[in-house]
Amino acid sequence: MSERRAARLAMLRSARLYLVTDDRLDHHTLLQRTEQALEAGARVVQYRAKAPGRRQFLEQAADLQRLCRRFEALFIVNDAVDVAALLDADGVHLGQDDLPAGAARRLVGDDMLIGLSVSHLREAIAARDEGVVDYLGVGAMFPTGTKPDAEYGGPELLRAVRSQTCFPLVAIGGVSVENAASAWEAGADLLAVVSAVFSADDPARAVRALLAPAARS
Amino acid sequence: MSERRAARLAMLRSARLYLVTDDRLDHHTLLQRTEQALEAGARVVQYRAKAPGRRQFLEQAADLQRLCRRFEALFIVNDAVDVAALLDADGVHLGQDDLPAGAARRLVGDDMLIGLSVSHLREAIAARDEGVVDYLGVGAMFPTGTKPDAEYGGPELLRAVRSQTCFPLVAIGGVSVENAASAWEAGADLLAVVSAVFSADDPARAVRALLAPAARS
Repeated sequence: MSERRAARLAMLRSARLYLVTDDRLDHHTLLQRTEQALEAGARVVQYRAKAPGRRQFLEQAADLQRLCRRFEALFIVNDAVDVAALLDADGVHLGQDDLPAGAARRLVGDDMLIGLSVSHLREAIAARDEGVVDYLGVGAMFPTGTKPDAEYGGPELLRAVRSQTCFPLVAIGGVSVENAASAWEAGADLLAVVSAVFSADDPARAVRALLAPAARS
Repeated sequence: MSERRAARLAMLRSARLYLVTDDRLDHHTLLQRTEQALEAGARVVQYRAKAPGRRQFLEQAADLQRLCRRFEALFIVNDAVDVAALLDADGVHLGQDDLPAGAARRLVGDDMLIGLSVSHLREAIAARDEGVVDYLGVGAMFPTGTKPDAEYGGPELLRAVRSQTCFPLVAIGGVSVENAASAWEAGADLLAVVSAVFSADDPARAVRALLAPAARS
């Protein structure tokens, strides 16, 4: 692993909160709330957007990347390996239907973090044995409104993945201030949040609550 | 321009027929009909598929590429610059909502053809002035069932683009054996076809009819 990637991985490990952008917000509101979250201490942002063509995706991702750089936060692109490569993002996050990790690695080089979503233990083990990705997103942790079709693995899945792999694990899916403790308990290194921050009346307060030591069991 | 790209461009210029895959067909049928078209003399195939995730897209594109290589036909990937780069395709074809041509060029290097769809003269002129793409798809030529939302430019648009640029021009949208002559007349270098071949009772016969000198005015 390159030094640069190792440094990025260390940042990820210590960030505790993994912000995933909410594609139900217009771009201006998204930037505004992301900035509030960064000011409150969030240090990882994944840009996820389903609808637009790659051109608009690239432009909006670039805006978000600039914002992240101001706060020295990690900027991660969901799915779009080409955009991640073009922007020299800190990471790219893949689902099971996206490009295989090995193919993505060929495009993005050795410096970029690659994350992978798993919703079954066997997927985590396959990723461990392949040795390409740097961290796992594990879920869905809890029932979730932003991805209603996500398979529900629950804290049990996270515990199982924890026991079989050494990856930094991001608990994702329905994580909130209220249920954060049980995600930490199951062995999460980071909590991924969408609605818990982007739909909050006060995104900064939500971030502070999720980062507070008290929230960690 | 690299020698390899120049050779690919020369092949494109002389191919006359530009086959665009029909994403309403299942993968097996698509391969079968593409093979029939290649046997009948088609020498350019663009893989276009809207629905699947990038992983499936990559796999299906790779199948089609293998088939094209057997016939020494050009294999072009629609939209997915990452997949085109991974497969070292002969070309990648961009729409106005896809990655900008300059960004795509950075990812795919100097050897790969880049095509661009235009449905307004100003888009063709912008592409000419930017100097990145190698050929244009111009349309929609005629009303079309496979892309019902496409803007209709008609032979007039093609004539206008012809007079303002030196690109090889691919007439696309609703082209059939019946109306091919008016597309040639308007100055097309190649005719793009989807339904005219893939929905034909006999794809090979449709290809031969479209390639026949008599079809060219």
